[in-house]
Amino acid sequence: MPLVLYDLAGADEEARFSPYCWRIKMALRHKGLAWREVPWRFTDKDAIVFSGSKTVPVLVDGTRSLSDSWTIARYLDEHYPEPSLLGGPLGEAHALFIRLWSESTLHPLILRLILPDLYARLHPKDLDYFRSSREARFGKPLEQIASEPSTSLPAFRAALAPVRSVVRSQPYLGGARPSFADYIVFGALQWARVMSPLELLEPGDAVHAWRDRLLGEHDGYAARAPICQPRLDPSAR
Amino acid sequence: MPLVLYDLAGADEEARFSPYCWRIKMALRHKGLAWREVPWRFTDKDAIVFSGSKTVPVLVDGTRSLSDSWTIARYLDEHYPEPSLLGGPLGEAHALFIRLWSESTLHPLILRLILPDLYARLHPKDLDYFRSSREARFGKPLEQIASEPSTSLPAFRAALAPVRSVVRSQPYLGGARPSFADYIVFGALQWARVMSPLELLEPGDAVHAWRDRLLGEHDGYAARAPICQPRLDPSAR
Repeated sequence: MPLVLYDLAGADEEARFSPYCWRIKMALRHKGLAWREVPWRFTDKDAIVFSGSKTVPVLVDGTRSLSDSWTIARYLDEHYPEPSLLGGPLGEAHALFIRLWSESTLHPLILRLILPDLYARLHPKDLDYFRSSREARFGKPLEQIASEPSTSLPAFRAALAPVRSVVRSQPYLGGARPSFADYIVFGALQWARVMSPLELLEPGDAVHAWRDRLLGEHDGYAARAPICQPRLDPSAR
Repeated sequence: MPLVLYDLAGADEEARFSPYCWRIKMALRHKGLAWREVPWRFTDKDAIVFSGSKTVPVLVDGTRSLSDSWTIARYLDEHYPEPSLLGGPLGEAHALFIRLWSESTLHPLILRLILPDLYARLHPKDLDYFRSSREARFGKPLEQIASEPSTSLPAFRAALAPVRSVVRSQPYLGGARPSFADYIVFGALQWARVMSPLELLEPGDAVHAWRDRLLGEHDGYAARAPICQPRLDPSAR
């Protein structure tokens, strides 16, 4: 019985943009596992109520259901050990730093950069939920959360400094081969790539070359990801 | 034959302040190894010419001499495996991210904050070398590198966000026990603690509590580190 993954979709059902779901899709390919996907939207809470979670990724493995990308990665390493995603206790402890760095540093910068594009690519039924949840999180109207790329894109690229330093000295954050640390940072970039035409990385940047390597990994799996088109009704923006 | 460590000293020979040497002293305690220390100043290049390095730490183990804290940590894990510092290939790859994050993010912020205090605590023979090398690195006079704590201390504390997030969910960056990742970030804080009266961390901060735990590790080894007093001649500042 293949695994089942509930995966966040945009207006276009084929366009899958959650940075957390991307971590898990890359992790499943890393393990050589097959899975079936169920497209899911932010407001489809009922569809995953069985898991106890209100957000995706939700992974179903036989009689088990798992949520939260970190929990799922640990589960995969425990039940499908090779090749390792986290590298044992110290590898996992150190990867937690990279995860929390990515979530505290990169995610807010990316969200601010792609927000108008992202909002224009959500399924209509998700618009109210997205607006109210993000306005509550940031404490201001959606229109004031978005940042101006001319100033915030250089800040985002500067924030990638530690990734840049690592991938100048080794191919991946995981060393010679990708690890879950790579998929964490890559997932954030895939989020932007699927939902915005804004190019976050400069062509000559070592981080750009590293992302290209990851797009090519697992038989070019992530490179084939459908890009989301904006909804036709511009008034809905 | 005990190990020998060349260790950077201030005006006061007992005051040892290099963040890179602190990594190694904590690593040696972590391994339960004994060592003899040779106090060293920036301008004592001849004393370590045998190692091929112009900077410390330099560690001598029998007929081998090693330099560069990262190389030394890997050597220690290879030759004295337990308890591990880096945790194998993935643990090491992920620790490299934490190292490069610390060096690119924390080190410049700390140097700017403690610079006048640090300069006032260097051995007189090191002053010219320190000034010219740091002015070359930053491209401006020493007096313009220093930052105003009222604005840059909050920025420094904000930059610690990923450390704070990790140590809220587990005792150390290495998990239940410290790893070399802890010693990397701790070394940067020890650098400031030995050479400046400025308190970088707020008492209620989870990072403060984490540093306290590390000060207490290995029988309170780092807590006993002598603090450097400023040189008596204020004109030399």
